[in-house]
Amino acid sequence: MKEYTYEQWQDILSQETEKYNTFCARGLKLDMSRGKPSSEQLDISEGLLTVVASNADCYSANGTDCRNYGLLYGIPEIRTLFAELLGVRSEQILAAGNSSLNLMYDTIVRAMLFGVPGGKCPWGKYEKIRFLCPVPGYDRHFSICENMGIEMINIDMGPYGPDMDTVERLCASDDTIKGIWCVPKYSNPEGKTYSDDTVRRLARMKAAKDFRIFWDNAYALHDLKTPGDCLLNLLEEAEQAGNPDRVYMFASTSKISFPGAGVAVIAASTTNLEDIGKSYTYQTIGPDKLNQLRHVRYFKNADGIRAHMKKHAEHLQPRFEAVLDTLNNQLLPLDIAEWTEPKGGYFISLNVCDGCAKRTVELMKNAGVIITPAGATFPYGKDPRDRNIRIAPTYPPLEELKLCCELLCICVKIATAEKFLNR
Amino acid sequence: MKEYTYEQWQDILSQETEKYNTFCARGLKLDMSRGKPSSEQLDISEGLLTVVASNADCYSANGTDCRNYGLLYGIPEIRTLFAELLGVRSEQILAAGNSSLNLMYDTIVRAMLFGVPGGKCPWGKYEKIRFLCPVPGYDRHFSICENMGIEMINIDMGPYGPDMDTVERLCASDDTIKGIWCVPKYSNPEGKTYSDDTVRRLARMKAAKDFRIFWDNAYALHDLKTPGDCLLNLLEEAEQAGNPDRVYMFASTSKISFPGAGVAVIAASTTNLEDIGKSYTYQTIGPDKLNQLRHVRYFKNADGIRAHMKKHAEHLQPRFEAVLDTLNNQLLPLDIAEWTEPKGGYFISLNVCDGCAKRTVELMKNAGVIITPAGATFPYGKDPRDRNIRIAPTYPPLEELKLCCELLCICVKIATAEKFLNR
Repeated sequence: MKEYTYEQWQDILSQETEKYNTFCARGLKLDMSRGKPSSEQLDISEGLLTVVASNADCYSANGTDCRNYGLLYGIPEIRTLFAELLGVRSEQILAAGNSSLNLMYDTIVRAMLFGVPGGKCPWGKYEKIRFLCPVPGYDRHFSICENMGIEMINIDMGPYGPDMDTVERLCASDDTIKGIWCVPKYSNPEGKTYSDDTVRRLARMKAAKDFRIFWDNAYALHDLKTPGDCLLNLLEEAEQAGNPDRVYMFASTSKISFPGAGVAVIAASTTNLEDIGKSYTYQTIGPDKLNQLRHVRYFKNADGIRAHMKKHAEHLQPRFEAVLDTLNNQLLPLDIAEWTEPKGGYFISLNVCDGCAKRTVELMKNAGVIITPAGATFPYGKDPRDRNIRIAPTYPPLEELKLCCELLCICVKIATAEKFLNR
Repeated sequence: MKEYTYEQWQDILSQETEKYNTFCARGLKLDMSRGKPSSEQLDISEGLLTVVASNADCYSANGTDCRNYGLLYGIPEIRTLFAELLGVRSEQILAAGNSSLNLMYDTIVRAMLFGVPGGKCPWGKYEKIRFLCPVPGYDRHFSICENMGIEMINIDMGPYGPDMDTVERLCASDDTIKGIWCVPKYSNPEGKTYSDDTVRRLARMKAAKDFRIFWDNAYALHDLKTPGDCLLNLLEEAEQAGNPDRVYMFASTSKISFPGAGVAVIAASTTNLEDIGKSYTYQTIGPDKLNQLRHVRYFKNADGIRAHMKKHAEHLQPRFEAVLDTLNNQLLPLDIAEWTEPKGGYFISLNVCDGCAKRTVELMKNAGVIITPAGATFPYGKDPRDRNIRIAPTYPPLEELKLCCELLCICVKIATAEKFLNR
């Protein structure tokens, strides 16, 4: 980082404050806090609404009436579709309703109440259990642990995924560690993809027998550029390493079709999937199969989904570019922040100077723009360096997004100047 | 029950065995084990499939894009609709996905992990907890308790609901009792509706502060005849009795629209609903709102649902009549069994002579017809008198149903004759 004199910081502060006041005077009321698709993006999937239109349409290939009860693990054709997308066998897929978060939460709940294969007892019966949390990461993962009283340990993200030396050291020496949260492709919020080496080390490392990798592959197909990043198949690697039961994979159509009305899946070893079934059969008689059928009929196959994802990418590219352009124009010359330039996913991660993230978000809020709270990307909402800000470019209209980013850069400059001026 | 001589039983056995063998020779393969609607019944709701057909259709009355994330408690209009149907306020409704079983299971899970308002600790932290189970009852309720390690106590059903003297005595004296399962209207399997007095006693009785009534109002609108039974509003009664938090009500459109693609709700006091929300917000970002919107658009209002239910009743009446006619013709003359004649719901309950239910079901199976296993209507699958058989008339085509019932009566006669002949 460049060094500035006191006077230079004073100049920056006064210039940026003037711009900031102009923004405030506009009375903005904008929200770019969550990583959700815009309505325009959802419009792309309109055909999904009516693809199952008549009574005769409601039967799956095996003759099941999808309107009725049954098929705990989902209809065969959606299991086959996700198997192809995730590179697993269809019998390794459990296809459920609209929320992969729900599947993750319920998987933790089952582990707390009943344990997982290989474990001595339910997780809830241990005096203490802990999860590794690569940071920055996804707030909703961390909230689940907090809700369950699972202690969280921060693991720094490097360029190729979590710091594996630390992960391996901790897992090998401490069997209170029962899990790790991973968003392995286009990670939330950094947009990083785990390297082959990282995936293999996760598959092979020593860990407790009831240790589980929660592999939230939320952005498996969400490339912004061609070619996108490639992610090694963890289930396959874990099988080969003799740890087939170490992995719960999660994926969904939340950001493919409709976030509020999609299909979510778990992929896991047969042992894990049978274990899940043991209590899942008490929890429900079956998922919304009609909606699963809609998805299969509309997308047809894996290629259909990949083609569909290109339309999303076309929509998202200008938004990501707008953010990156603004950051490059406004912050690069001052050299007071760093950010990622992901090839896919839903976020850009911005690191400002230590101690400046909260103040930046506060300034945004006072000017009428809500962004993800500072700290949200860390367990317990505590960013130890108070520097990470998650930018979610997908939802606001392009013009609003540009406005928000202009404002964001102004707020970063003000917060940084305030820091160096000791204000 | 009439008394027969040894010779008379021998005659019955030989006559019925001849008929039975004829049935066996037909090589039947029929399943009338579950209480699910027939495909013809599901056809009634065809319009639901396409009522939300375009992008512009996807917005709820308050402007929410139902395709996107959000609205943890469901869209306002579905909450209003269920509030009207259940006689509660819309803010007392949480509307979710396709399975009320899932809501019940999750409610027990939350209680096990976090407790319920009024309790000293999570249910899972008590040394032992117990549930009252009116019998015969719904097997899936009992399975949840078994899955959670909750001990179950049988409570006999009388003509007006569970034996309230016993319920009151146990709840007043034993605070390990944390719940009771009720299907209060057209109970499963007897089709009985709780009397006003029963509802009031449940609302008013002394019980542990974290005792809860699981009020599974699955057949709230499922009259077969006009007028149907009337059920007092338990939430209202509990409020008036100063026990507003005692009740979790459940309902769904499973047997109104599509069992596999409907909407399920919880209705409860504000305190309970807020308590649910505390962990529900970690479990999901929101339900399938698009499907909720479909339901509201298709049914429009409570009267729309009531009119729709008349169509179901038209379809079900001949089925229930066929079963009752056969039982009346075949079993009444011999006076060897008793059965219910419900005014609504999905089942007829048949009590044969003590010790004859399992053998009857076995005979059915050997002739190629699967019915609900004997014992399934009791906790742990154990009918202490081995006499209760659940008849589910809704799913098979009418002619098959008649055939099944003919066979059932033959099997009952054989099993009974075998008993009295000591075979």
